[in-house]
Amino acid sequence: MKAIRNVGSYLFGPGALGRLEEVLRGDPRVPAGPVVYLVDHFFAGFTAPLAKLPQRPLDRLIFMDTTHEPSTDQVDQVAARVRADFSDLGGLPGVIVGMGGGATLDMAKAVSNLLTNGGQAADYQGWDLVKVPGVYKIGVPTLSGTGSETSRTCVLTNYQTGVKLGMNSDFSVFDQLILDPDLTATVPREQYFHTGLDTYFHCMETLNGRARNGIVDAYSEKAIDLCRQVFLQGDMQDQSSRENMMIASLMGGAAAGNTGLVHPLSAGLSVVLGVHHGLANCLAMGPLAEFYPPEHAEFLAMAQAQGIKLPTGLGADLSDEQIGKLYASSIVHAKPLGNHLGEGFRDILTPARMAALFRAM
Amino acid sequence: MKAIRNVGSYLFGPGALGRLEEVLRGDPRVPAGPVVYLVDHFFAGFTAPLAKLPQRPLDRLIFMDTTHEPSTDQVDQVAARVRADFSDLGGLPGVIVGMGGGATLDMAKAVSNLLTNGGQAADYQGWDLVKVPGVYKIGVPTLSGTGSETSRTCVLTNYQTGVKLGMNSDFSVFDQLILDPDLTATVPREQYFHTGLDTYFHCMETLNGRARNGIVDAYSEKAIDLCRQVFLQGDMQDQSSRENMMIASLMGGAAAGNTGLVHPLSAGLSVVLGVHHGLANCLAMGPLAEFYPPEHAEFLAMAQAQGIKLPTGLGADLSDEQIGKLYASSIVHAKPLGNHLGEGFRDILTPARMAALFRAM
Repeated sequence: MKAIRNVGSYLFGPGALGRLEEVLRGDPRVPAGPVVYLVDHFFAGFTAPLAKLPQRPLDRLIFMDTTHEPSTDQVDQVAARVRADFSDLGGLPGVIVGMGGGATLDMAKAVSNLLTNGGQAADYQGWDLVKVPGVYKIGVPTLSGTGSETSRTCVLTNYQTGVKLGMNSDFSVFDQLILDPDLTATVPREQYFHTGLDTYFHCMETLNGRARNGIVDAYSEKAIDLCRQVFLQGDMQDQSSRENMMIASLMGGAAAGNTGLVHPLSAGLSVVLGVHHGLANCLAMGPLAEFYPPEHAEFLAMAQAQGIKLPTGLGADLSDEQIGKLYASSIVHAKPLGNHLGEGFRDILTPARMAALFRAM
Repeated sequence: MKAIRNVGSYLFGPGALGRLEEVLRGDPRVPAGPVVYLVDHFFAGFTAPLAKLPQRPLDRLIFMDTTHEPSTDQVDQVAARVRADFSDLGGLPGVIVGMGGGATLDMAKAVSNLLTNGGQAADYQGWDLVKVPGVYKIGVPTLSGTGSETSRTCVLTNYQTGVKLGMNSDFSVFDQLILDPDLTATVPREQYFHTGLDTYFHCMETLNGRARNGIVDAYSEKAIDLCRQVFLQGDMQDQSSRENMMIASLMGGAAAGNTGLVHPLSAGLSVVLGVHHGLANCLAMGPLAEFYPPEHAEFLAMAQAQGIKLPTGLGADLSDEQIGKLYASSIVHAKPLGNHLGEGFRDILTPARMAALFRAM
């Protein structure tokens, strides 16, 4: 049985960001009080989207550095800065608007939780550890595929302990989303492809898994259907494809089922080598043809149709020490690996076999 | 651009009703205080589902008479009864649980709004007239197809004025749903078919309309896909079909796009002849083959596959006065009719042509 927590409401369509002011001032559910805009630093170079943010004198805009995967330290620092900026309001703004890709959206969710719950980000990594609702939060995705906009988690890496884990909580769900497909027009093509495929991978992993749920299946099937339209029919970044990819991501995130083999191997690549999640998924899928035959062929066809050159040659340069770390940081994901292979997954994914998979990337 | 308001969360799966107590007592979002169960009178004869309701001494169970389409009078009466029962709590219970088909769910939503907003049900028929959130409400659908469980409206007929109109409001959305496909096992077969087809019709009307939205299209397409599995593959009422039909209804209700020709003609049949909505849709679709050729053929194939005899012969007995009333109460639905036929819909659906359509039912 699956409990599904939904985002309160969406506003969807080209130009939707232009209606953010109306949402902030005209929607009785949105608290009054100043707004903190947490914006992907990618947008520091683009004045047009920033000019659409209806900033007032007491509002604050903070750029989020997304060079690396988001960390607990980063979230602690941003939360401290917001608390200091709003010290005369008890440290609390009225609303947090997160605008960016999955990293920025995840950090916005974590900062929201931290401001009202106190303590440090690492205190809430796990399941249902967040005690009270965070600051009211609105998500504005500018990159489609991670599903962060509809998921009930925000994944952070604690570099002190090496733990990469989300704040899994109903309180990690956005209260509202502004879904404006115009915002994904400027995404670099390779990043657009890698991130879009994140939806395809997690949905196909879910549908090939043993733990199943009717609602999750329905969302996953529709998300894959939309990914096929985006990546196999016409250009992935024309307007209708950007709309479809935004909806696919939304549905994939709402489903957020248990995954299979791609995501654990991908997590290993991120933790050990610092590879970004979208690219890491594509690398991980490379040697998995025997586990997902039709999906592997479809993945290659999608890359070819969009003129995307998939990365190769990573495995040849890996040291034995790196291979050992990659094995350890992948095999730890027992739930998704067992979802695909059953409880005996360690007998199938032996250290030698995993080494061969990583060397083939 | 489309603003979509979502139900806060779902619990989905066979036996989910057995977890209502956990939701009521263990979920921090659910207010304390007594529960009012508004239950379709159909269940008065079935002790098993009622025994699953975790009633405490201060809770109340009220059966809802769904012999006729729900009325503003009925809602006013139930609200008055609840106010009187809870007069020592300011007239307000903690939670309303609505359990039944679309009529019961719609009445539960309306009673919830009325208890906190005051006045009478007719005061809130229209768009965004409800001022403050209603009593916290949980929906338990026992019949799939109407989409009431996820829609932002609750349709009531005011028999004094003849107005059939919903309380269209973000506050008309359930806070939570318990989705238990076991509950639809006892629905009479014809009613199950007619109501399930409600989802099929409103989604196919949406997809054949002129006003379109990417998210609404995606939900509608998936809902139709699921309806095809339910009604064209195997028995519509076996367990997996009941699960799929419940998900189809949920997605159809979440989309809740503008409709086309079936729903306006169906509304006429309900207002003038008192025909229930699901059956009225099937009657309305009868003579519409020329407007929806593939969908009409599919509708007939679905009925045949499930051994459902579609009603015929209604039209032959209609008086000229009834035909006049049916025309008037259908042609008034300018928005959906225009969505299918454009602004000149009155030139196409002349009184003579409409008379021929009704006579062919």
